[in-house]
Amino acid sequence: MLVRITEVAPRDGLQNVKDLIPTERKVAFINALSETGVDEIEATAFVHPKWVPQMADAEEVLRRIDRKPGVIYSAIVPNERGLERALSVGVDKVAVLTAATDTFNLKNINTDIEGSFQKLIPVVRSAKASGLPVRGYVSVAFWCPYEGKVPPQRVRDVVLRLLDVGVDEVSLGDTIGRASPKDVAELLEILLRDVPADRIVLHFHATYGMGIANVLCAYREFGIYRYDSSAGGLGGCPYAPGASGNVATEDVAFALKNSGAEVRVDVLKVVEAAKSLGLPLESALSRIPKPIL
Amino acid sequence: MLVRITEVAPRDGLQNVKDLIPTERKVAFINALSETGVDEIEATAFVHPKWVPQMADAEEVLRRIDRKPGVIYSAIVPNERGLERALSVGVDKVAVLTAATDTFNLKNINTDIEGSFQKLIPVVRSAKASGLPVRGYVSVAFWCPYEGKVPPQRVRDVVLRLLDVGVDEVSLGDTIGRASPKDVAELLEILLRDVPADRIVLHFHATYGMGIANVLCAYREFGIYRYDSSAGGLGGCPYAPGASGNVATEDVAFALKNSGAEVRVDVLKVVEAAKSLGLPLESALSRIPKPIL
Repeated sequence: MLVRITEVAPRDGLQNVKDLIPTERKVAFINALSETGVDEIEATAFVHPKWVPQMADAEEVLRRIDRKPGVIYSAIVPNERGLERALSVGVDKVAVLTAATDTFNLKNINTDIEGSFQKLIPVVRSAKASGLPVRGYVSVAFWCPYEGKVPPQRVRDVVLRLLDVGVDEVSLGDTIGRASPKDVAELLEILLRDVPADRIVLHFHATYGMGIANVLCAYREFGIYRYDSSAGGLGGCPYAPGASGNVATEDVAFALKNSGAEVRVDVLKVVEAAKSLGLPLESALSRIPKPIL
Repeated sequence: MLVRITEVAPRDGLQNVKDLIPTERKVAFINALSETGVDEIEATAFVHPKWVPQMADAEEVLRRIDRKPGVIYSAIVPNERGLERALSVGVDKVAVLTAATDTFNLKNINTDIEGSFQKLIPVVRSAKASGLPVRGYVSVAFWCPYEGKVPPQRVRDVVLRLLDVGVDEVSLGDTIGRASPKDVAELLEILLRDVPADRIVLHFHATYGMGIANVLCAYREFGIYRYDSSAGGLGGCPYAPGASGNVATEDVAFALKNSGAEVRVDVLKVVEAAKSLGLPLESALSRIPKPIL
């Protein structure tokens, strides 16, 4: 099965890096990622610079990158002001935010689930009216740092509501990296009764060491073929300082290839792109001098 | 299902550490590991000190540790001289060595598969005559750094021969950490036709990022319940300097617990024991300040 990878390092990987990275280096990083074979690149987030200073150059980044034909360049858009900014620089796709628990939404975007929908519905409508596809993120879709294990039924309800308001695809985030393949299987068993596999993207973190196991469970046991990942495993976990973050693109691509999937990502190019930033990397493959591919 | 863990850090984790660790610290480390809930501890190797200087104090280590009732203290024994030494200090169990390829055996123990059996057969006989259980290691049971992917049929033949010469259990090593769950599934499908699950131990490395995925595949899909692992992920990979080594005991235990297995290992105690050595750790759990258990 052909796997589709959304590379999230430029956004999820960099948003918590304290030192501001020059726009030029972000642009070069995204350009390098464009040559790796990933399908989409989440390039930035049109959030208020006060909240995420690292993303203050969102317009400039999108304006300056070389857009490789066939690659989709997306961005997070939390509200209508963000959408205006994103549209002004011709983003290919936008992503809106919610979470599977009220507590996480309140801490993350200062409103509960209901409030998050009131904010995202007009964004989805305007984006669709402008002809853009829309992704909906569901944070803490497995475990919440405040509420613990999240019941799959609750996640399904949020997913169905997102699809109902016009979102094209849903990315289910294991935000704190605490999910096990058992958790993944429980959620997918319920979700796939109502939602086609091509609407589901999985977004795992490596924090508790089960990220790759989760990807392979979802692929091998449920045929999910769309994953978010971050070059070099960049990202960290803001809820566990010092712990590792997003699953690494090169490790995800390698593991899926070695599970019989068709994967068009060149893992060595991903490692090279990630190394160009000079940040500490978390991936397994970036540490092997001469990997047997 | 009740999981059985063999803790291999004192041997596999330390054998490639260049600076000699004082015997006292090894003893304290093993004593701490004895309190973690692991079932067996591979305490040392009775090899010639010229080849593995770190293991030169094998007798002293086994003499000085506090043996916790119920915990099995084993050691690697490459030949009859090693067995004499091991018996002299009352080891509980011995392990003999072979590999699934001739090339790896030649580079590792200076003889081919046939030669390795000629060396191990008398050790197995003498050990059994002394009433000791014997483990047989099969290195490169999935991938070989010299020969590439190893055909499962060849591994099965080596396993069957080990059992035939009197070995009680076989530990299948993914020595270079290159196996994927697909490789694991292919081997286990063939092996389980001829070998009962309780004779099989799996010994994964984390080098290519799939170690935990392999453990969970073997447990969830094949009911394998015996694993080797190393506290803190100590070990490194001698075939890929800088890359990570054995799967970490705390990560294996945590992943299995979160897959519904009965696991008696206290992951926080394992992390604490591993940290006591002052070596860089590789595990996911050792990096999370306050893990949600």
